[in-house]
Amino acid sequence: MSRFGDATELRRLGDGRYTVDLDGDFGFAKALNGGYVMAVLGRAAVDASEHAHPVSTAATFLRTVQAGPAEVIVDVRKTGATTTSARVTLVQDDRPVTEALITTATLDAAAEPTFSGARPVPDLPPPGDCLDFADGPGDELKGFASCVDLRFDPAAMGWLSGAPSGRPEMRAWFRLRDPHEPDPFVLAFAVDALPPVAFNAGADGWCPTVELTWYLRALPAPGTLQVHSGGRLVADGWFDEETEIWDSAGRLVAQSRQIARLGR
Amino acid sequence: MSRFGDATELRRLGDGRYTVDLDGDFGFAKALNGGYVMAVLGRAAVDASEHAHPVSTAATFLRTVQAGPAEVIVDVRKTGATTTSARVTLVQDDRPVTEALITTATLDAAAEPTFSGARPVPDLPPPGDCLDFADGPGDELKGFASCVDLRFDPAAMGWLSGAPSGRPEMRAWFRLRDPHEPDPFVLAFAVDALPPVAFNAGADGWCPTVELTWYLRALPAPGTLQVHSGGRLVADGWFDEETEIWDSAGRLVAQSRQIARLGR
Repeated sequence: MSRFGDATELRRLGDGRYTVDLDGDFGFAKALNGGYVMAVLGRAAVDASEHAHPVSTAATFLRTVQAGPAEVIVDVRKTGATTTSARVTLVQDDRPVTEALITTATLDAAAEPTFSGARPVPDLPPPGDCLDFADGPGDELKGFASCVDLRFDPAAMGWLSGAPSGRPEMRAWFRLRDPHEPDPFVLAFAVDALPPVAFNAGADGWCPTVELTWYLRALPAPGTLQVHSGGRLVADGWFDEETEIWDSAGRLVAQSRQIARLGR
Repeated sequence: MSRFGDATELRRLGDGRYTVDLDGDFGFAKALNGGYVMAVLGRAAVDASEHAHPVSTAATFLRTVQAGPAEVIVDVRKTGATTTSARVTLVQDDRPVTEALITTATLDAAAEPTFSGARPVPDLPPPGDCLDFADGPGDELKGFASCVDLRFDPAAMGWLSGAPSGRPEMRAWFRLRDPHEPDPFVLAFAVDALPPVAFNAGADGWCPTVELTWYLRALPAPGTLQVHSGGRLVADGWFDEETEIWDSAGRLVAQSRQIARLGR
């Protein structure tokens, strides 16, 4: 196994129930990372399905997730030849903390797109010209930085020095330190691994995600991922964040959108 | 009331249970429209909440929805001062047919955005220069056309005459015929009211939506809505579709993304 594999490993209790020991380094003191939680829920959904991949995951974050033991409950709602859909709930202290509707299917690793949109603009500078997350200030980041190697495009990191770009945006190279090559569960983690795009539109503080939906679009090639995030509207205490992940072979492998609260 | 109001009206049975009589004109023979179903689920979620608006709706379409009686079950999963989140399920013939996680909150009609992205390109031609959905071929469209006035940008309608644009796209002016001015439930309907964008990327036939998540971003002004849809990837039997709705005051009021199966 690997660090990430261990951190998302489920013990099957039967009847769609699992236990997991959540690793506190995949997140921060305030709460574990939502993408990490989605990776755990995705593994449970696939385990309870005849299909191999979590194609669609729509997660609602009800309460903050804490490190330590949790239960995962899978309630299959439809079983089909092409897809299976289930409610998947993470439970801590007898309360639902994250709930997702997950549809599994089996993607074809050899499928070629009939249409693929343009790559996000601007492209990322080479990793050596990017800001290393591990060099960031504060001990609070050390645990997370021990799990994942993130290199940020400096053009979208002005918020760190009080000069946000004015647009909701964030871009980074992403790889697990294990090393653990990308798979669909790593993508679940990666779609929510960057700081909130609203930091570049003047927000700061804790910006809790309320809902995040991500789609697996292709099986990722080995190597470093590119994560590109933007947003369309910051208003009335809410902002959206759209993320695309492109793999080392230059393919769009995951897309997500989330809605979150502005920091308070 | 209005046609749309009647078609989404719920009878409260208590304990989070409702009945509804689904209007077959809000859809086609094969299945009712997914956006219409989301409008019904959104009304139930708001009724069961202390908050006024369905801010986030993540719907999984398990089985085709048929005209006639249905039950709606709301199971509140978290109640908070700012948001309430619930599972909302449409049941027909004792089976779940659509299931959604819906988060309600109360938006401020007077809120001004601190950031708003650019309008989609290209803009729509004036309605008089657009293709009227009601002029479309076939009796199957008549019921739907009696509910909604849709005027399509001809530049993205080449698929009708066997000349698709080659890009997943679709754009239209939208208003209910009632008349019933836009509200959040009308937006739920509008985000899924256009033909699949994949028709412009060579697809045809029945393209069932598997999952659709939409966010309410502002309360819409009275008047005609602009619906802009695009997509990023068509591959391996799947395509995504992103929709933005702009109101008559020029504001982004709703955004959605769905993943659907290519027609068979």
